[in-house]
Amino acid sequence: MKAVLFGGAAIEDYRFCLPYLAEADEIICCDGGMHHAKALGIQPDHIVGDFDSVLPEVLEEYREAGISIRQFPTHKDETDMQLGLQLALELGADTVVMLGGIGSRLDHTLANAHLLLWLLKKGVHGILANEKNRVELTDGELTLHGKAGDLVSLLPLSMEVKGVTLEGMEYPLTDYDLAVDDELIAVSNVMLGEEAKVRIKSGYLYVMQTRD
Amino acid sequence: MKAVLFGGAAIEDYRFCLPYLAEADEIICCDGGMHHAKALGIQPDHIVGDFDSVLPEVLEEYREAGISIRQFPTHKDETDMQLGLQLALELGADTVVMLGGIGSRLDHTLANAHLLLWLLKKGVHGILANEKNRVELTDGELTLHGKAGDLVSLLPLSMEVKGVTLEGMEYPLTDYDLAVDDELIAVSNVMLGEEAKVRIKSGYLYVMQTRD
Repeated sequence: MKAVLFGGAAIEDYRFCLPYLAEADEIICCDGGMHHAKALGIQPDHIVGDFDSVLPEVLEEYREAGISIRQFPTHKDETDMQLGLQLALELGADTVVMLGGIGSRLDHTLANAHLLLWLLKKGVHGILANEKNRVELTDGELTLHGKAGDLVSLLPLSMEVKGVTLEGMEYPLTDYDLAVDDELIAVSNVMLGEEAKVRIKSGYLYVMQTRD
Repeated sequence: MKAVLFGGAAIEDYRFCLPYLAEADEIICCDGGMHHAKALGIQPDHIVGDFDSVLPEVLEEYREAGISIRQFPTHKDETDMQLGLQLALELGADTVVMLGGIGSRLDHTLANAHLLLWLLKKGVHGILANEKNRVELTDGELTLHGKAGDLVSLLPLSMEVKGVTLEGMEYPLTDYDLAVDDELIAVSNVMLGEEAKVRIKSGYLYVMQTRD
């Protein structure tokens, strides 16, 4: 089951969201993320958060439409995005896409990227995406879909990632050990066709499909 | 000695740059970063890069002004920012500030954040900053300067950071172990006064001063 979550980070052009939304079984808005659903003219399935950053009339409109709403106290340990992920897992999601999770605050963006690890450890495939970046995390193998010329960057989450092997990319790597402070060789690789593969033997590796 | 580097990421408002530039002993432009010096009306001390992303007339102007220019081949393992860091270290910098290093491409931004580790291991204090974020990395102790109400977020670079102790912040931590997938307790902390301290016993921790 696929869930799509909206966080509160700004989205300039919703076009990149459409393929994810078209495949979504459940759409969950995390607090201020409900403004994205409103902007898209979409009724979400669920809304979670402390609602400290939403317009009351939008919340009221969704309440009247009978949408499931979970309100949490303002002082809590989880971010609104994490509350949304917890709900997605309760609903049985095995793939979760976070939209509105990459923004101008680098701490929030990196915390959302780190949530990919939280998901991975629960056996759930997570994707963090905006207009220019699609971020996934792997501890084994990942197949990428795109087209020739698409950029792919690999960045270690763990301090070291052992045995990186790439297929279908311009700069091949075979059984290469990548460290956080020696990774630049793996930034801005290029897909040769519509499919590419990344395999690693140990560690956690961010795989980013990105464009200028 | 303090070096300030300009990378090529967009800067909307140069005001945040001024305190760093006022204290700079050396100003280094990394490729497209020279457009920031131009926009500020500043002549840098050095320019490095492959110059694939600069206007030839700006480069020519700086060449005529006698500014030191180091040109590298386009296919190289280092990013332009890392070439700038290497030069800063050659010049004897013990503090390096990266401006124009946080942008819309998350792979470049994260690679620049990872360069803080490369610097730390060489005994150099690195800062990565833009309008909304000032990022530092510590493996020991860091003192923060600001004012009451300023936001501070702590995000592990290593998978685990042991023995985190905070002083001068609203949500205190004492000898707390922070993991990448259990870190949210340390996002959006608040400074109580003009100084705060972060101490850790092991690992590498990002300390981000941030604002909305």
